[in-house]
Amino acid sequence: MRKILLIGIGPGGPNYLTLQAVEALNRATVFFIPDKGDEKAELRLAREQICERFITAPGYRFVTIDIPKREAQPQDYRATVDDWHAQIADRFQQAMIDQLPDGGCGAFLVWGDPSLYDSTIRILDRLRARGIAIDYEIVPGITAVQALTARHGIALNGIGEPVTVTTGRKLAAAGRWFGETTVVMLDGEETFARIDAAGAEIFWAANLGMDDEVLIAGRLPEVAPEIQRVRRQVRAAKGWVMDIYLLRKADGDES
Amino acid sequence: MRKILLIGIGPGGPNYLTLQAVEALNRATVFFIPDKGDEKAELRLAREQICERFITAPGYRFVTIDIPKREAQPQDYRATVDDWHAQIADRFQQAMIDQLPDGGCGAFLVWGDPSLYDSTIRILDRLRARGIAIDYEIVPGITAVQALTARHGIALNGIGEPVTVTTGRKLAAAGRWFGETTVVMLDGEETFARIDAAGAEIFWAANLGMDDEVLIAGRLPEVAPEIQRVRRQVRAAKGWVMDIYLLRKADGDES
Repeated sequence: MRKILLIGIGPGGPNYLTLQAVEALNRATVFFIPDKGDEKAELRLAREQICERFITAPGYRFVTIDIPKREAQPQDYRATVDDWHAQIADRFQQAMIDQLPDGGCGAFLVWGDPSLYDSTIRILDRLRARGIAIDYEIVPGITAVQALTARHGIALNGIGEPVTVTTGRKLAAAGRWFGETTVVMLDGEETFARIDAAGAEIFWAANLGMDDEVLIAGRLPEVAPEIQRVRRQVRAAKGWVMDIYLLRKADGDES
Repeated sequence: MRKILLIGIGPGGPNYLTLQAVEALNRATVFFIPDKGDEKAELRLAREQICERFITAPGYRFVTIDIPKREAQPQDYRATVDDWHAQIADRFQQAMIDQLPDGGCGAFLVWGDPSLYDSTIRILDRLRARGIAIDYEIVPGITAVQALTARHGIALNGIGEPVTVTTGRKLAAAGRWFGETTVVMLDGEETFARIDAAGAEIFWAANLGMDDEVLIAGRLPEVAPEIQRVRRQVRAAKGWVMDIYLLRKADGDES
């Protein structure tokens, strides 16, 4: 039996780590780093620095797992993701069997929280379904959702009201915002600037917890061009950008 | 100007604290503890123990703020909450002015995350609207949502799918579950057992992170009676229970 820890490390910046995560870091000896080819040097370095800073015993090591690229605009999203996950599972399986001794403890450091828009849990479930003897444990991390609201100084929900977390893809497919508080993640297409969202205000952030973190808030039609400009600026400066935003009714301060 | 830190301490158990929260604890000298009269001794003690364990300098102190009771089943929910918040703001204002010197730093330790179903941010916004010179800073905490999925070992979302977080009140008002992944909080009425939720499976937890934590999962109609039985047992044993659950399509393992 091999033990795998899925450790949420928060959205950026080591101060988002929990005490439980620090404890978990010290239980693992092999840290698997999935690398999609475009693995950002800064993000990889950040994970290595977390290990250096918080692991007290020497002797741990990093194992890179090369991840195949997924088709960017698939015809059938679900089927494409399914195939892709099967391929990743093959790589995970080989890395674990080759690099982690039976009885050993390995870990994945996951940005944000392993339960939210991350596929590591699903890949490990596939390995178990194949009969690979692995046991995993999830250490929750602060999500970008919480960092977003904390940095903007706002509540996530209206009083007694629901909140939906969704993706840029889903928002684009709907073509409009439905008036409820909605957090949008994984939006590489600036969907906020293209949808029908009359009456919305937006709270936007890029690269939360990092040195180049930037926040913009305001009525959506008014600030959308500024967000697009700043977003492209941040991406141009470092080669990538991770952003997230919340839409809610303007004048919707429901306190 | 007075500084107030809203520190998320996670859903129970000091290991959910982030490093940022520990750092914030050490910046405050006055810890405000809202007490609704039924303030659970165990929860108050847990907060005091967090301070004892993580604050390195002596000289901090606790200030209790008596919170009036809110009408349990109001005719007009929003108006009742609005009145109630105005009353709480009066108490906060008095406590801060009397107990926190100008230029001082106070803190609230908030269960879970201050942005999710917690009114402290809104109350402080009211004080600022009244012209009280306070500045606040939010330190995000692990929410019960993330602890729930971590402890059940599941992803929060289906692949590329949205997630809604809502309240027992909203679910009861709808009378049914709409087939999307839904997390339900603040449900004191066992709504899961009364709604139309054909095809749902439930992942339920009570008192996450505490000694009497309990988890139950399964197809909703099959496990609902067991959840009700265990929930009442936990509540009878200690006088209260904090629970949360996720509903999703059964056989909905979308990996």
